[in-house]
Amino acid sequence: MIPPTHPRYESLRIREMLAGGFEAGAVAAEGLMAHGRGEAFDYMLGEESTITAQRAAHAAAAALLLSAKPVISVNGNLAALCAADTVQLAEAAGCGLEVNLFYDDIRRRRVIAGMLRRKGAAEVLGTEEDRATLPGTDSPRRLVSARGILAADTVLVPLEDGDRAEALAAAGKRVIAIDLNPASRTARAAHITIVDNVVRVMPRLAQYCSQMTQYDEGSLRAVLGAFRNDTNLAESSRTMARNFGGGRHA
Amino acid sequence: MIPPTHPRYESLRIREMLAGGFEAGAVAAEGLMAHGRGEAFDYMLGEESTITAQRAAHAAAAALLLSAKPVISVNGNLAALCAADTVQLAEAAGCGLEVNLFYDDIRRRRVIAGMLRRKGAAEVLGTEEDRATLPGTDSPRRLVSARGILAADTVLVPLEDGDRAEALAAAGKRVIAIDLNPASRTARAAHITIVDNVVRVMPRLAQYCSQMTQYDEGSLRAVLGAFRNDTNLAESSRTMARNFGGGRHA
Repeated sequence: MIPPTHPRYESLRIREMLAGGFEAGAVAAEGLMAHGRGEAFDYMLGEESTITAQRAAHAAAAALLLSAKPVISVNGNLAALCAADTVQLAEAAGCGLEVNLFYDDIRRRRVIAGMLRRKGAAEVLGTEEDRATLPGTDSPRRLVSARGILAADTVLVPLEDGDRAEALAAAGKRVIAIDLNPASRTARAAHITIVDNVVRVMPRLAQYCSQMTQYDEGSLRAVLGAFRNDTNLAESSRTMARNFGGGRHA
Repeated sequence: MIPPTHPRYESLRIREMLAGGFEAGAVAAEGLMAHGRGEAFDYMLGEESTITAQRAAHAAAAALLLSAKPVISVNGNLAALCAADTVQLAEAAGCGLEVNLFYDDIRRRRVIAGMLRRKGAAEVLGTEEDRATLPGTDSPRRLVSARGILAADTVLVPLEDGDRAEALAAAGKRVIAIDLNPASRTARAAHITIVDNVVRVMPRLAQYCSQMTQYDEGSLRAVLGAFRNDTNLAESSRTMARNFGGGRHA
């Protein structure tokens, strides 16, 4: 529908994927607004993966590979945008997959789980009856799977809300966030925040994890130990401010 | 539903108004994403009307009062967020009201026209059979009313697309835009760009126009003549970059 020559082709194509996910019942109306917020931050970031973001993704891959029980929290927007890459990452890093929604709805959960299964996921948690409650938050996302997020030592939360990100960290889990707003509560609560678009991050993380399975534990620990989230967030903020104030897009 | 004590109360309340407009058939799914983009830029702006934005609104009020045939272009998001203020501004400045949509649909046009009429609008253009085509653009928004936007000397375009903004200016009309992204094509194509949220701008413009009807023509021309859009846009960009890079929200 959109000609590839359109100056905003990539952005419009992604927007159509979201609209398709909305029609399929995977994406909530509020998810469309959330996507728009992400678009604006991505525009400021220059719509590319910065060196800063790549460094955070490298640390995240190390953290996932070092974890005993990592889980990826999947919502409707993530499934609509990159279901296949999410399944590939889960395989590469040995992660569990759990559907977890802010605007909760069992039908939406099932639609999303189906999208992941069609891309090859063997098991998708979050649609069964093993529901548990994450303590320390009133977020609708506190409803988790007892075998999944509740038991996890590391949780990858692409597209998260700040309240639950804080609760996950308070519960002693290592939190890896993907968030285009480096000043958000999620970005600040997480141990590793990748300030980048999930569409670019998920395939990159899958690729890094595939390559880094060859690293020994000491090398993975060195990568993780060299990462500082506060420095990384400050760098991302500066990049965005510079792009915007400097009239990069003007 | 949302407690007024919530730290993001105002933002969530506005989001609910949009979702309500979507359910009522006035707002397109793409309009929800566009709102999200606006939210992110507003967040960077500090979610307040800057002095810079107030100065642009002052010039815009002068321009509307000096015009022989000003028209306000109304889309679904504007109607969902501030139908009453839009009608008040039209009365205060003697503006026509015309429904004009990017994702065009005659049912949506009628729903939006009905929302304006319920707030007291005597006449709403854009749902009748006097359609004309604005030259110089392929934008779906080129379909205008022959008695409205096509005949107007000044067009107020809150929430516009860049392609049509350029075509309106090329057609010799004075273009007043409301746009939260100071680097957008719309912001740069317009003669006066108010970098602010429509929710705050529309009541302010109505108030300014009511007060400034007492000005003589020379005073209005002085206000308008003192305004420089490029300077104003650069100031807005700097404010946003400073807020973001300086960790104002961190």
